[in-house]
Amino acid sequence: MAKEPKKLDQLFHDTLKDIYYAEKKILATLPKMAKAAQSEDLKSASEKHRGETEGQIERLEQVFEAIEKKPQGKTCAAIVGITEEGAEIMKEYRGSPALDAGLLAAAQAVEHYEISRYGTLIAWAEELGLDDAADLLKETLEEEEATDEALTEIAKTAINQEAEGDEDEEEDA
Amino acid sequence: MAKEPKKLDQLFHDTLKDIYYAEKKILATLPKMAKAAQSEDLKSASEKHRGETEGQIERLEQVFEAIEKKPQGKTCAAIVGITEEGAEIMKEYRGSPALDAGLLAAAQAVEHYEISRYGTLIAWAEELGLDDAADLLKETLEEEEATDEALTEIAKTAINQEAEGDEDEEEDA
Repeated sequence: MAKEPKKLDQLFHDTLKDIYYAEKKILATLPKMAKAAQSEDLKSASEKHRGETEGQIERLEQVFEAIEKKPQGKTCAAIVGITEEGAEIMKEYRGSPALDAGLLAAAQAVEHYEISRYGTLIAWAEELGLDDAADLLKETLEEEEATDEALTEIAKTAINQEAEGDEDEEEDA
Repeated sequence: MAKEPKKLDQLFHDTLKDIYYAEKKILATLPKMAKAAQSEDLKSASEKHRGETEGQIERLEQVFEAIEKKPQGKTCAAIVGITEEGAEIMKEYRGSPALDAGLLAAAQAVEHYEISRYGTLIAWAEELGLDDAADLLKETLEEEEATDEALTEIAKTAINQEAEGDEDEEEDA
């Protein structure tokens, strides 16, 4: 009857599987975003982040190694839902001046999910005395925060103006 | 054939419906979290945030009014996925010393989703010249950020130690 009580090390492992799945899902989604994006800034930000994501997946594999577990994903309902919303934007706003604003918002929702997850994992790794794992996760957290800031900058400059339809010369064709 | 191109005002309205649905979903989830939580700090944080969420829903209704639309939700796949993960934690970690750490992580994922959405909506409201709407959304964003910080503090203090099983007197019964 009585199950072994699950402790923080198990929660850490479970959450590691969750973000490992999420990063792989994001890796598969980024080329679609780069292709769909109208602005060159958003295209190149998506491509840059794709390379970073590959590195982040490798770091997660090192964290699995640090806790002597095989790298393994576990369906992350959150990222499935978040990327689904991004796919909806791509479909519903295709050819629209607001497309990039919507894609940027979707990408920032992804970044915030990751920022939240990595923040949690770092706190737990420190609590569990997994210093090397904490350092690896911090490297990724910094990249995610930088990506989020870069997306905010892109959104501030060109995109929002465009979405208002101020510059819809191409759209009126 | 040619659809009217969707612009930023429409994206703003769509995203408002998304967060309106999300806030209502969160309102329904918070009592479950308060009930499931082991620590009094997490219980009372959940109850406090429930009251705030009611106010945030009212503010969203004022924003709908500002754009002359009827308050209306639209299924938000992201919050469905994020809260699903929280429900999984409640089930899988029930009676476990790591339960609260898992609930806190789930709650922070929710907060980060909201922070991302409100940040986006504020930028768009400003771009669209909806100053009153932007002010309302900023009030909510500040509350969400404060909630996220409060959750981090709760996580830092009692919970993580508990989840390690250092203090599992009650669990050994």
